[in-house]
Amino acid sequence: MPTETDIITGDRKTDRGFQTPEVWAKITGKAIYGIDLKLPGMLYGKILRSPHPHARIMGVDLEQARRMPGVRAALAGDELSCKPFGMVYKDELPLAIDRVRYIGDEVAAVAAIDEKIALKALEAINVDYELLPAVFDTEEAMAPGAPQLHDQHPGNLAWQRELTRGNPEAAFKTADLVVEGSFSVPQVHAAYLEPICCVADYDPYGGLTLHTAVQSPDIVRELVADVLDLPVSKVRIIGPVMGGGFGGRVYGNLKVYIISSLLAIRCGRPVRMQLTRQEEFIAGRPMIAAKIRAKLALNQDGTILARAVDLITDNGAYSAQAPWVSKTLSERNDSVYRIPNIRTTVRLVCTNKVPTGQYRAYGNQVGNFAMESLLDMAAKKLGLDPLELRLKNCVKKGEVTVHGLRINSCALSDCLQAAADEIGWHKRKPGRGYGISAAIHAGGSLVFDKNMRGASAYARLEYDGRVTLFSGEQDYGQGTHATFILIAARALGIEPDQIIIYSRDTLTSPFSIGALAMRQTTIGGKAIQLAAEKLREKIAQTAAEMLGEPVVMEGGRVRSATGKTLELSEIAADYRFQTSGLSITGEGKYVPSESAYDDTGYGNIAVAYSFAAHTAEVEVDRETGEVKIIRIVAAHDSGRILNLISARGQVYGGVTQGLGYSCQEGYLFDGGRVLNDSLADYRIPTALDVPDIMPIFIEQDDPEGPFGAKGLGEIVMVPVLGAVANAVADALGIRVTDLPITAERVYQAIVEWECEQ
Amino acid sequence: MPTETDIITGDRKTDRGFQTPEVWAKITGKAIYGIDLKLPGMLYGKILRSPHPHARIMGVDLEQARRMPGVRAALAGDELSCKPFGMVYKDELPLAIDRVRYIGDEVAAVAAIDEKIALKALEAINVDYELLPAVFDTEEAMAPGAPQLHDQHPGNLAWQRELTRGNPEAAFKTADLVVEGSFSVPQVHAAYLEPICCVADYDPYGGLTLHTAVQSPDIVRELVADVLDLPVSKVRIIGPVMGGGFGGRVYGNLKVYIISSLLAIRCGRPVRMQLTRQEEFIAGRPMIAAKIRAKLALNQDGTILARAVDLITDNGAYSAQAPWVSKTLSERNDSVYRIPNIRTTVRLVCTNKVPTGQYRAYGNQVGNFAMESLLDMAAKKLGLDPLELRLKNCVKKGEVTVHGLRINSCALSDCLQAAADEIGWHKRKPGRGYGISAAIHAGGSLVFDKNMRGASAYARLEYDGRVTLFSGEQDYGQGTHATFILIAARALGIEPDQIIIYSRDTLTSPFSIGALAMRQTTIGGKAIQLAAEKLREKIAQTAAEMLGEPVVMEGGRVRSATGKTLELSEIAADYRFQTSGLSITGEGKYVPSESAYDDTGYGNIAVAYSFAAHTAEVEVDRETGEVKIIRIVAAHDSGRILNLISARGQVYGGVTQGLGYSCQEGYLFDGGRVLNDSLADYRIPTALDVPDIMPIFIEQDDPEGPFGAKGLGEIVMVPVLGAVANAVADALGIRVTDLPITAERVYQAIVEWECEQ
Repeated sequence: MPTETDIITGDRKTDRGFQTPEVWAKITGKAIYGIDLKLPGMLYGKILRSPHPHARIMGVDLEQARRMPGVRAALAGDELSCKPFGMVYKDELPLAIDRVRYIGDEVAAVAAIDEKIALKALEAINVDYELLPAVFDTEEAMAPGAPQLHDQHPGNLAWQRELTRGNPEAAFKTADLVVEGSFSVPQVHAAYLEPICCVADYDPYGGLTLHTAVQSPDIVRELVADVLDLPVSKVRIIGPVMGGGFGGRVYGNLKVYIISSLLAIRCGRPVRMQLTRQEEFIAGRPMIAAKIRAKLALNQDGTILARAVDLITDNGAYSAQAPWVSKTLSERNDSVYRIPNIRTTVRLVCTNKVPTGQYRAYGNQVGNFAMESLLDMAAKKLGLDPLELRLKNCVKKGEVTVHGLRINSCALSDCLQAAADEIGWHKRKPGRGYGISAAIHAGGSLVFDKNMRGASAYARLEYDGRVTLFSGEQDYGQGTHATFILIAARALGIEPDQIIIYSRDTLTSPFSIGALAMRQTTIGGKAIQLAAEKLREKIAQTAAEMLGEPVVMEGGRVRSATGKTLELSEIAADYRFQTSGLSITGEGKYVPSESAYDDTGYGNIAVAYSFAAHTAEVEVDRETGEVKIIRIVAAHDSGRILNLISARGQVYGGVTQGLGYSCQEGYLFDGGRVLNDSLADYRIPTALDVPDIMPIFIEQDDPEGPFGAKGLGEIVMVPVLGAVANAVADALGIRVTDLPITAERVYQAIVEWECEQ
Repeated sequence: MPTETDIITGDRKTDRGFQTPEVWAKITGKAIYGIDLKLPGMLYGKILRSPHPHARIMGVDLEQARRMPGVRAALAGDELSCKPFGMVYKDELPLAIDRVRYIGDEVAAVAAIDEKIALKALEAINVDYELLPAVFDTEEAMAPGAPQLHDQHPGNLAWQRELTRGNPEAAFKTADLVVEGSFSVPQVHAAYLEPICCVADYDPYGGLTLHTAVQSPDIVRELVADVLDLPVSKVRIIGPVMGGGFGGRVYGNLKVYIISSLLAIRCGRPVRMQLTRQEEFIAGRPMIAAKIRAKLALNQDGTILARAVDLITDNGAYSAQAPWVSKTLSERNDSVYRIPNIRTTVRLVCTNKVPTGQYRAYGNQVGNFAMESLLDMAAKKLGLDPLELRLKNCVKKGEVTVHGLRINSCALSDCLQAAADEIGWHKRKPGRGYGISAAIHAGGSLVFDKNMRGASAYARLEYDGRVTLFSGEQDYGQGTHATFILIAARALGIEPDQIIIYSRDTLTSPFSIGALAMRQTTIGGKAIQLAAEKLREKIAQTAAEMLGEPVVMEGGRVRSATGKTLELSEIAADYRFQTSGLSITGEGKYVPSESAYDDTGYGNIAVAYSFAAHTAEVEVDRETGEVKIIRIVAAHDSGRILNLISARGQVYGGVTQGLGYSCQEGYLFDGGRVLNDSLADYRIPTALDVPDIMPIFIEQDDPEGPFGAKGLGEIVMVPVLGAVANAVADALGIRVTDLPITAERVYQAIVEWECEQ
């Protein structure tokens, strides 16, 4: 396991091991998660889901359910007057009205005094379906005559894009080498351990309160208010401790929030609704599946000339953010290397399968798998060392990439070198395979909302001299709050244990886009820094007025030119008296310069870009196909590392999820039915599956991030897929191009290869 | 019942009937009170109380209790390192160490997984007591050789005061008439319907959270933090809906908060502790009992020359605020009339009975009973109409009273006249008795803390154009929040239903002294007005920047000179974008001019003074002694009435409580044991006991209060006692001088009078 030397620079005491109280609450079993919550008079809500992949609803009979003792409400879609909603398209209703489009589609809901009665009530609901032909395969769905899912998506095309930059045609014609490949990746679930749970509580005058943990409460709040036609300030979200998010809980499960709210409004009592694990797999919005045909043009010396991608992603029945995820998947890894010519075709296709959503790294890891596989195929054909090929082409500080990203700090070549050195790239052990892969990830996206690019925060001096931070950014285990506290401590010159942070209540926190797009440290942390600096300034100002002479703040107190000192608690007390009760508060507002991107998406889309190179060392059993991951070295440029313990945690967790993506996970379907809809059948890595993971941080201050820091939380997963695929190919001499690289697939590949020989 | 004409001026639509959401939640049974709360993993705490009025604790054996299955902690005082605490004297410990001083003194406490086990565990605790002689009567307690309760109070004198203003000796010598009387008043409980309940939740890193409803959470927070030696910002109080307070819940029950916190800290789990009704009567800090000897000197024409009072109040075992209550009781009603010469002696005496606290009107109603009885006795002797006597002497605007109160607005003589006219003072019905009484009450005390006299508040513009207020002032049924919303609505020019207020969380509200001393409307409301005005100013400023020209805000939108308009939601949205997430917020800080009072207490002690005159019409059954209250007319000068529905509610409730005080309530003791320790035996008025109550408001703008308003919540109770006593005396020709004026007492008085004849 890693040692202190894994961080190349850095000698700051507080960076080493700060954790927020919540970590200890989790460790000691005292944390109160959403699923632990109970409110007085609370009812239990359950959803009736479609058993058919595609059908017309001819009628929903709720009478029998409504008459059952203990049932307080039963709802169907035709009684509601909610408008359709969705992140990109308004393609969903809280409860289906005339059609269901996948096995799991929400048809009716009940609230009862306990969960058993609620489940019994579901059985008592009679739905009259007229079955419709269904389509499960993306190619079949695009074919003429295929069953159509949405009027707004003719030909089942939910989104498409054709993009050319430079002159890819010419480059492919003149290149010394063109390598080509087809890759596929299944749907993958974020598999947070705590299933989505919400307690909705409605008071007709005060409004709706949702007790639920989401990564982006402010966005969810606005969506829910819109669907329910409530003023947004009459919806409040209070978040308990979150049992994992990983991007899968950015907007959580909007259906759960809306349906539990509708039931709470109907019943006038709090309604708790929790997804079962099976429902999580069916309705929990996994990452889109993708089929990628890609080719790369290179010169003999290894210079990359062009890249072409034809991407088909499987939207499932409803879109959520699938168009945006498809876009990132298709293009982000174009910016890892200098590639002057690009052609990309993307088709996002509706099928009668589970609707999709987003997951940590937002598709970038899928692109990495295809791109980095192709690079190794090219290196092999050119007779180049894969490390050398990457070092030759990788992007550098000061460059602008093919999509217009402005690289203001970059240690990617150092990462490649460090990851290779540490794994023993040039001192390989016999019988083992070695793979390398590189990544870029946008940290602090500026494209979510053209008008809302930054973040804000408050820092308040308490009467006892301690400091409270208020931020809309969410910590769901990734360590954001510890990092924010360290930033504020540094800005204020006080100890981190004197600071506490609140972020889980939309009533008290400033608006935030949320924990997504790796914007927490870069953007949210910058707002914290500015708030703390403003507080420091206001403390000094108040103290100067008290003492009647200029002061400086240092070491948690204020000192004047003539040597008088004031404790922070004295300054707070005086301010309170002067103002009849107020506290000194610093506002921090970080407003990044506007992102300028054109209609093709060309432009600078983030505050900063993080980089990484991972190397993998594997053993493959040629008899069984079993892949054993020996070691992953994860070298990262996330700028200055503010909290080493959290940063390491991110690497361990993200690499582990990347390994699951690479070798274990993926939805299995029988038609529209999910076959592996439990954690017994859908195997995420356990502690026993995790190899030696070695984080390396190459620290270079970013000019924009707080104290030089950039984001880390998503990129940690990205290079794993390519590195593992390449290491397996290196060990076998055979390349597996479909994820996950299970023993079965490897064995099949060996058999096929042997047949071809 | 009252009609619209009961308000003399006022034609403002919004004044008529605004109520906050909470009222509706209460009416529909949906309000969540403290006693409804349950937290995951919550334990139940119970207190073992002393069965002896005075004893030495030789030992507390907790072993057996601790070994009981389901018991999680058992505590005794000797294991704790808490410091003594108290509002005036540090005379209490969380759990007694060496001595108990009354039947009910807290000796040990347990926390268990349910309430039954907790109660069983109490039975398993063995306490070894050595009995000590006890004293129950105040005179006996002052006698030499009496058992002594506290080392810090030799002779059992917890507080004493001798005060002379002017030359009372000379006045009594030269007066045409001196009337004299002895009066007594028992302990009375505020009898809020929801007993004190607290759920304490402790996390060693985040701190202590108390879920409990108190009138002054910020003061309780500081006291609890001090006793437990925690930084004050690590104690948070979140208040559920309060089931009544009436001054009895200003600091709630500190023992409950401290002991549940100690158990929560010990167990690492939330601990719920609720007083039973019996415990409420024993340990719930009733209003002090008083014995009053008073005399009044007058000229033949009815001019009051001097007043002398010798007051003995019963402190019980511990003081809480008994000294301050005794002070108010002894002197406040001196300022109703022009009385140039005053002599007051007060002795607050410790006894081995229930410790005392405060109640709505803070003793002023007890003084009213004695003073107004004496006035009628004088009128009778002088052959003057009691109304005329009062009109002749009553204080007027612009005067400074004998204790230095500066009367900046006063409609007392109008109140006297209106109350008399409405009851039919000069058109009396045969067989009925009529009584009148007048009162002053300080609204917005400035003496609680010399440095913290005012209040502050925030008003925030929400993204949807609605407004949220944050205040530390508490609404526990008296209607403060509705009034605050009306104040903000008027200041902002928007409808009250666009405004919501939060006050019940010390994390989010500015510091406040609390709901006491009739300071909510006068001081807290003024801060709201200033906050709303500041918000209005900032909205206009933001809009002017958006439009590039000057604007005015009117009718919930902003309009520029050239006729451009902006909705508040548009302004909020623009501000959010410009600041990356912030909301426009107005801070209001009301800092009244310093109160100047000397060591004798002479000076101006409040922002404004409210006045009232009540008349009572009664029938007395001379056979049984039964008193039937026919009607109470309550004429009030509380300045401009901002919310008529709340104001009426205050009068109905306060008069009803005054009637309970007058005719029904009072502790009965057998030695140190409370005999009537249930609501079956301690009879507060029920709906069937309430007579016709007629509120009259004489509106005169106060120069300082918000929109001319003054306080009302406490004075409503004050004149009832004197008016009823005088009406009974008028009906009978015999005066009852001991409260409550029960049928038994009246009957006895008739018998005694008949014997004397």
